[in-house]
Amino acid sequence: MTAYRYIVIVGCGRLGSILANHLSRQGRNVVVVDRDEAAFKNLSAEFSGFQVTGDAAELAVLRRAGIEEADCLLAVTRHDNVNLMVAQVARTVFGVPKVIARVFDPSRQAVYDQFGIETICPTLLSADTFLAVLDQGPPGARAQAARAPEAGS
Amino acid sequence: MTAYRYIVIVGCGRLGSILANHLSRQGRNVVVVDRDEAAFKNLSAEFSGFQVTGDAAELAVLRRAGIEEADCLLAVTRHDNVNLMVAQVARTVFGVPKVIARVFDPSRQAVYDQFGIETICPTLLSADTFLAVLDQGPPGARAQAARAPEAGS
Repeated sequence: MTAYRYIVIVGCGRLGSILANHLSRQGRNVVVVDRDEAAFKNLSAEFSGFQVTGDAAELAVLRRAGIEEADCLLAVTRHDNVNLMVAQVARTVFGVPKVIARVFDPSRQAVYDQFGIETICPTLLSADTFLAVLDQGPPGARAQAARAPEAGS
Repeated sequence: MTAYRYIVIVGCGRLGSILANHLSRQGRNVVVVDRDEAAFKNLSAEFSGFQVTGDAAELAVLRRAGIEEADCLLAVTRHDNVNLMVAQVARTVFGVPKVIARVFDPSRQAVYDQFGIETICPTLLSADTFLAVLDQGPPGARAQAARAPEAGS
């Protein structure tokens, strides 16, 4: 077995639904959990996984998602705190081998590290990409010299 | 001149402040605009640029930020709509040569493209990174076969 087979995704927003659609297309078993049933509208018609409506902070909801069989959990709600808590429960209570959480706040990554939770930070990914684009420099720079803004700033 | 020299950054949240601190350290002229003065607390002590408090949707605020001299504007508030509007004004009203906007919603990128605005999408960057990590597969996969979740899901 060379890939994660049973993946629980917590949060079915933009990121969660992109991941769910993609991983489902790859033939993996995917279960998506969201508190808000309306979020599942983001799933494509071809999505062949399962949907669980409920608060993933509750153990019963994670069990309904089959977490005890999962070899991977992705915590991608829009709330760093929720992602941390769910990821921690997945690691420590259910022993899920692979747990990755989205974390917007780079300063929280140290907390996640302590719990052995891998993180992906959109803020840092974006910063790296912005800076890479800027490092390329302009095709033809403006003639005017840069100057400080006017008073009042 | 091989790099953008005068950069206006709209939005001083996590991303805006990381960019401002970094670009200022590189010796570029940086002006950061935010409606909320408290946002500037994210700037480092070494930040040597300017801070402009105000709504960047107003032309007068952009002028105070020296946009007429800028060769680059980064629109990185947390609101896609604001970023689109500010970026569009920077391009069409002030002719800023390089305009890049953060856009969380991938489906909006087509709109930006129409206006010649480069975009960076944290959602897609994150999705790519998650999928790349998952494609590496587990070091040692779980013994149990994957199965569907229980009834009720």
